[in-house]
Amino acid sequence: MTKIVIIGGVAGGASAAARARRVSETAEIIMLERGEFVSFANCGLPYHISGEIESRDSLLLQTPESFKSRFNIDVRVFNEVIAIDRQAKQLNVRNLITNETYLESYDKLLLSPGASPIKPPISGINHHFVHSLRNIPDMDKVLSTLLLHKPKHATVVGGGFIGLEMVEALRHLGLEVSLLELANQVMGPVDIEMANMLHQKLVDNGVDLRLKTGLAAVNDCPIKLSEADNTDDYDKPLSPHYHLTLDLTDNNSFATDLVILAIGVKPETRLASECGLVLGPLGGIAVDAGMQTSDADIYAVGDAIETADFVTGKPTLIPLAGPANRQGRLAADNMLGGKKLYRATQGTAICKLFDMAISSTGLNEKSLLKQAIPYEKIYVHTASHASYYPGAHPITLKLLFCPDSGRILGAQAAGIDGVDKRIDVLAVAQRAGMTVYDLADLELTYAPPFGSARDVVNQAGMVAANVLLGDEAVCHVQDLHHLTATQMIVDVRNPGELTAVGAIEGAINIPLPELRDRLNELPKDKELLVFCQVGLRGHVAYCMLVQHGFKVRNLSGGYKTYQMVNAHF
Amino acid sequence: MTKIVIIGGVAGGASAAARARRVSETAEIIMLERGEFVSFANCGLPYHISGEIESRDSLLLQTPESFKSRFNIDVRVFNEVIAIDRQAKQLNVRNLITNETYLESYDKLLLSPGASPIKPPISGINHHFVHSLRNIPDMDKVLSTLLLHKPKHATVVGGGFIGLEMVEALRHLGLEVSLLELANQVMGPVDIEMANMLHQKLVDNGVDLRLKTGLAAVNDCPIKLSEADNTDDYDKPLSPHYHLTLDLTDNNSFATDLVILAIGVKPETRLASECGLVLGPLGGIAVDAGMQTSDADIYAVGDAIETADFVTGKPTLIPLAGPANRQGRLAADNMLGGKKLYRATQGTAICKLFDMAISSTGLNEKSLLKQAIPYEKIYVHTASHASYYPGAHPITLKLLFCPDSGRILGAQAAGIDGVDKRIDVLAVAQRAGMTVYDLADLELTYAPPFGSARDVVNQAGMVAANVLLGDEAVCHVQDLHHLTATQMIVDVRNPGELTAVGAIEGAINIPLPELRDRLNELPKDKELLVFCQVGLRGHVAYCMLVQHGFKVRNLSGGYKTYQMVNAHF
Repeated sequence: MTKIVIIGGVAGGASAAARARRVSETAEIIMLERGEFVSFANCGLPYHISGEIESRDSLLLQTPESFKSRFNIDVRVFNEVIAIDRQAKQLNVRNLITNETYLESYDKLLLSPGASPIKPPISGINHHFVHSLRNIPDMDKVLSTLLLHKPKHATVVGGGFIGLEMVEALRHLGLEVSLLELANQVMGPVDIEMANMLHQKLVDNGVDLRLKTGLAAVNDCPIKLSEADNTDDYDKPLSPHYHLTLDLTDNNSFATDLVILAIGVKPETRLASECGLVLGPLGGIAVDAGMQTSDADIYAVGDAIETADFVTGKPTLIPLAGPANRQGRLAADNMLGGKKLYRATQGTAICKLFDMAISSTGLNEKSLLKQAIPYEKIYVHTASHASYYPGAHPITLKLLFCPDSGRILGAQAAGIDGVDKRIDVLAVAQRAGMTVYDLADLELTYAPPFGSARDVVNQAGMVAANVLLGDEAVCHVQDLHHLTATQMIVDVRNPGELTAVGAIEGAINIPLPELRDRLNELPKDKELLVFCQVGLRGHVAYCMLVQHGFKVRNLSGGYKTYQMVNAHF
Repeated sequence: MTKIVIIGGVAGGASAAARARRVSETAEIIMLERGEFVSFANCGLPYHISGEIESRDSLLLQTPESFKSRFNIDVRVFNEVIAIDRQAKQLNVRNLITNETYLESYDKLLLSPGASPIKPPISGINHHFVHSLRNIPDMDKVLSTLLLHKPKHATVVGGGFIGLEMVEALRHLGLEVSLLELANQVMGPVDIEMANMLHQKLVDNGVDLRLKTGLAAVNDCPIKLSEADNTDDYDKPLSPHYHLTLDLTDNNSFATDLVILAIGVKPETRLASECGLVLGPLGGIAVDAGMQTSDADIYAVGDAIETADFVTGKPTLIPLAGPANRQGRLAADNMLGGKKLYRATQGTAICKLFDMAISSTGLNEKSLLKQAIPYEKIYVHTASHASYYPGAHPITLKLLFCPDSGRILGAQAAGIDGVDKRIDVLAVAQRAGMTVYDLADLELTYAPPFGSARDVVNQAGMVAANVLLGDEAVCHVQDLHHLTATQMIVDVRNPGELTAVGAIEGAINIPLPELRDRLNELPKDKELLVFCQVGLRGHVAYCMLVQHGFKVRNLSGGYKTYQMVNAHF
């Protein structure tokens, strides 16, 4: 009879426990969780704060009781493991209710401790109006601050998934919101021109967005909290005085009522490192493809570990629920004698921001550049379904691929409708080792409410294949920024479009329908950088001009991409 | 200079024309279309009839003028090709306006004639209140009948894509609707238990659904049309008399005002067969993977041709817009010297019906049985996104796979939300040659508004992999129908569920949380057919019971699948 002990009862730990019991009816399975809750929906926390998820109970997916009755698992909440004795295969556990400690032995140990919010060592960071959001008690505290202190202005620090979701939640509740982000863009997994769509969405929704700006200090507001708030009459509106003032890294400061700290997480590795398990280069617990740590009897899963990146094979930290879930299931199999191998992580992710979604899979351009991996890229802006059917919205898709093989390196998409579907399709294609040529041939669902006879992904595949086959030479916005004397920009849009959406300085305008008759206006000794609104008419112009002996490149994604790249926030 | 003539200006023909010009600026390109319109959105016709697509113009994607100005293509509408002289490489063309005929030569000829609605040779089929719906004039006629004669009751004959879309459109307009379908199910591409979800949706939306019922004759109603309708006052409500009576194949008859004939299409092969081109076994034009017919200078694409089925490699007729579009593009390349090959067709398709979508890719169970291809199947019913986030709806997914390799043979899905996405994911996976094991490992987008940490497709992959690995033995509803004396049905749902949604006669009920303590109530000499509501708890019970020495199988898809299979309409 194998005795399995699992440290941590959320995502990976919970999956592992349930799977272990299905595999072995006889194993003894103990789950130790230092918090009050196991198997809760941490991805749902911002949406309960916003009120969109009404019931708090719906976030509690399993309870210690349901684990016991369905899976015969001994779940011990408020039980914190203090130390692991690998020699003795024994844990030193503290019951946080009684404060007593006890020893618990194991045959196989699973570490699923997760990651903890990063808390920078700045003045005032422990103020009771500064919140993180990682678990149910965190959420309860935010809700109680909202209820009791009726803040009017909130500041979110960090523009990642949780930061953006919290910005939306707080705006949903009617608060004024400032968002501080130390980098030059929110949502690190995508590139900056894609993030600019989010920046625009934030501004459009009244968010005070401050990029390249960090939090330097948190101070009590001169008007003391006790004077303004210390009353039993919670319904009485607050005085117009704010609770806090924040000092920023750009030397500005402003007043706010509430801070949400969402600058990222770091793997919880204290237990692992204290007992001498090997950590990886990024500071996560090192595991092999079987989720085994450097100790053959100890496995680890979830946000605390490093896995292999799908494209590069190098270690990466991917604190996401999907991988954690699959790793938990797999570790359970292997602790009970299985030989399952985890496949590398693409990091497929998505974030909702107001009416928009942004999503990515694989590597982004920043990391490709950083790692000096050769790539080509294209942009398309294509309707989410047949444009003549109501509810179609453009999807902006950026596709990164290998210039030799055409293999998919990464993809990013943003839009109001159908973004998740396109990144899912591309994530499967990437995992299957497909090339951009394969994308052109994909047979996807089509009826006017759902797609187009030539889907966004087909379109992207065709454009990328044209580039690789030499059927089209593309240029990018950066090329237009560094124009040489032997280059010339040609805008093939209709004059009305220039007036409506803007023009590029120095470009000459010959509308596509007139181009064939006005070839004599163009020089053959210059390289023509052609563009239209999204790249399609530019391609038609490209084909025409090349065959008439001109040197040409087409701006990938057209003027729309130009605007994305050149937006400033 | 190559002279390309294209017969037919919609979908495949239009794609080919545009692509040909992009490839060759010097080619002479002529498009002959016997109708008034080229490149119109035929998939949008039902939605303009319903009023959901307001603008008729939005259905006209290109015009002869736009083809001329953008692509320098000589588009001749109302020009019908009467005969092809392959020896002389010449066409005999009639101008339908002037009624004059002329000869037109070609170097390369593309046939894109489409398919025509099947019109059964029954009495009254040409009545002016009997409509087909294939093109803009057809649509205009339906709209004019609706406007001028204010029908109160319409009858749709045929429950395929157009039939179902027209049922919805007419209900949307407030008409009473009867739907006649000769087969025992609507929507042939899916299996009957999946179609039963559509049958239920039709009934729930007040449609008079008559399966196994065909149209036998169309008769004028005894009250003459002239008496009731012949008035200039179009706004005056009609008398309550109907326009038509229909005789049905089941010897019933009823009165109606309007018939939409949508029993399917047949490839337009007159021109091809008259000039001696080889037709395929299913009556479509035979082409090779390069879209070349038996004449090296004649290519054919779209609804008129036979392509290879992705799973079997055998010829198939797939009258869908996506494949037509890609074939047109590819044929253009090849007519201009390219060597592109079309890949086999999966037949990925989707149909919206009221608030529901049904979709499929690959082969269905009916065809697998008919062609004696070995398969296994599983069902899952999983929320379209995190169930705690608003707007989640169950997706019913049926997965058909190879019992040896685990390769995906086909998939069908139905539900209110996210159906298109899951079939797209599965269509890509199938095309990539992935197995059900790969599905379990797919890394798909997850945030509560979009998916689940374990997506529907992951779930289906895990269940299928369990079956193939022997981690679970499944049974199907048919097994429960043919129970032997050594079998016993065990329902592990909670008693409340049985009351709420129904029970299976003869099953004993032991709720899962009590099962481990009540094992002694179960016989070891019988095979236990275990089930729960959707199959998940059944799997937990299966694992438990097998390890305690019982012979067990779990009902795939649980009671919900049982209800789908046993529904009668």
